[in-house]
Amino acid sequence: MSGSQGSSARVGARRPLPTTCIIGLGLIGGSIMRDLDAAGAPVYGYTHSRSGMRDAAREGFDVSDDLSRVLSRASSDHALIVIAVPMHAVEDVLDSIAMYAPNCGITDVVSVKKPVDELVRARGMRERYVGGHPMSGTEDSGWGASRVGLFTRAAWAITYDYAKECEDAGRRVSADWVDIFGQVCELARVCGAEAVPVSVDKHDEAVARVSHLPHVLAEALAVVGDRGGTLAQSLAAGSFRGATRVAGTEPQLVRAMCETNADAVVKTLDEIIPLLQDARASLAAPEPDLEQLVGAGYRAVTRMGARKGARAESVSPIKISSRPVMRIQLGAHGWVKALRQTESLGGRIDVF
Amino acid sequence: MSGSQGSSARVGARRPLPTTCIIGLGLIGGSIMRDLDAAGAPVYGYTHSRSGMRDAAREGFDVSDDLSRVLSRASSDHALIVIAVPMHAVEDVLDSIAMYAPNCGITDVVSVKKPVDELVRARGMRERYVGGHPMSGTEDSGWGASRVGLFTRAAWAITYDYAKECEDAGRRVSADWVDIFGQVCELARVCGAEAVPVSVDKHDEAVARVSHLPHVLAEALAVVGDRGGTLAQSLAAGSFRGATRVAGTEPQLVRAMCETNADAVVKTLDEIIPLLQDARASLAAPEPDLEQLVGAGYRAVTRMGARKGARAESVSPIKISSRPVMRIQLGAHGWVKALRQTESLGGRIDVF
Repeated sequence: MSGSQGSSARVGARRPLPTTCIIGLGLIGGSIMRDLDAAGAPVYGYTHSRSGMRDAAREGFDVSDDLSRVLSRASSDHALIVIAVPMHAVEDVLDSIAMYAPNCGITDVVSVKKPVDELVRARGMRERYVGGHPMSGTEDSGWGASRVGLFTRAAWAITYDYAKECEDAGRRVSADWVDIFGQVCELARVCGAEAVPVSVDKHDEAVARVSHLPHVLAEALAVVGDRGGTLAQSLAAGSFRGATRVAGTEPQLVRAMCETNADAVVKTLDEIIPLLQDARASLAAPEPDLEQLVGAGYRAVTRMGARKGARAESVSPIKISSRPVMRIQLGAHGWVKALRQTESLGGRIDVF
Repeated sequence: MSGSQGSSARVGARRPLPTTCIIGLGLIGGSIMRDLDAAGAPVYGYTHSRSGMRDAAREGFDVSDDLSRVLSRASSDHALIVIAVPMHAVEDVLDSIAMYAPNCGITDVVSVKKPVDELVRARGMRERYVGGHPMSGTEDSGWGASRVGLFTRAAWAITYDYAKECEDAGRRVSADWVDIFGQVCELARVCGAEAVPVSVDKHDEAVARVSHLPHVLAEALAVVGDRGGTLAQSLAAGSFRGATRVAGTEPQLVRAMCETNADAVVKTLDEIIPLLQDARASLAAPEPDLEQLVGAGYRAVTRMGARKGARAESVSPIKISSRPVMRIQLGAHGWVKALRQTESLGGRIDVF
């Protein structure tokens, strides 16, 4: 990475993926390791899980439970470090990186970006950090749940607040940071995902709506459904299973994402609770009438479907992404503006 | 059917499926027609949909858009009539049946049982009516969405309030009604579903929890998610799609099920809204803490999974039902008591 400093000829070129060092080998970290390995990219990692390490090693992966050694090795390799531990463990990992791998580029996969950004900022590491969040997962966790292809066609949110702030302050974004940004885009690409540039705040607000609120609703619905006892369970079909599936997620993970994004989740609850109260009032009326909510919900779903629109219905045998694509020359004039435009469209970027 | 009257030797035997006449050929009615046809059982039907009739006829099905003729034919055949129209059309269909097919056994597939039961009761048709509700569906509707195998392993709720009331009043359930009950069980079996005996009230309370409330939540979540605009949509992954899928259901169908089961749905909203308000308060606290809801939701999901338990994890290559089974000899001494026991367990019955 440091070798590219000042090499203006390389600005804008697709960054080849360096060696990748993954810290944390659960569902997400493990699946990234599998994808990189399947693509022939050099990758190794750390896990604190004895069983995870044993199972990964048995499958031939290069894993260790010695964090300082793994990070020292990453430092020698100028590896890209992927932090794939739960939020509560990020702080310690950052401190270890500061100690053992002070030269490495850093990204992460934590589902809330603000608290990670704050920890990074507090350690003066922003110049070598690019936040990430692959939007894929299952209700299972741990190395045993990891698999090749977990991220296929998923959005991989990549933060660029640092570049915006540099630009707003009239400073040029460092070539190092541009390099790391490009490496994270390439990481997403190798994993089959689509790089979606996001601001930290907008990311956290969006995932509160489309991920954290659904988790809260799933937990509450599971409680209410369970109260119905065996008959209700026996009659439960697709709508219940679909709506409660994510309530089977490890509680610590659900708590971490909701509690660290509490402000944004509270706002979405303040939107949905009145909708449900109105529905309750409409149904309790002498002539129950749910037209308002059902009509609005159906229109919303239809609109969301229409946004995907023509592309998804293409006759091409190759499945085409529903996200608009913007070709970006990293570090070139106006590239941060292009990222902003792409973000406003929920688009993906293709780095060249 | 009438031929079996007084034939005590047949009490308890599995009822062979008579000719079946399906009124309404949408997702559910159409799929029943396909399953019966695939099993070689005689079946014909009525639909008011021109395109549905054209498409079904083109596939070789025996369909008509002349209701009185279809019902007269059912009357001649002593067919079992399956009412598979939306709730708002049930009343007219019952009146037509009273006029053109006064001797036929009747069942239905409407997702709320109380209002149908009331219409049947008001017409003095209870002695030849057995309510049904196959717990399967998709967000699509119409003949075009129907398919073979839609009900495989699904619960097919079958009401038996009439038998309970007879028993409570010290009267013997008529052999005709027992026959129809057996035919509906056989219909469910031929469609690959599992017959789950239910009381009207308990059914409606249970489906409010596990079907209607999930629909209301899906509509509300779709509205909140849509407000997030293109970026939120771009980042939406499995948890959002799973939780909003059923909001794509035809609004009239969602309204019909919720509005005709309004009392029970209101009760479930009165359970879930406080859970969400508590969650909101927990997240708005200085130290956000969602342990209570997430812990309860996870335990609920775990408990629901455990109920399926050992059977689902059987090493047998044949997938075994998770519902406890009760073998029932229809009309035999104590059979209604056995239905009550089965209902309390959310079990299925095997008729012999």
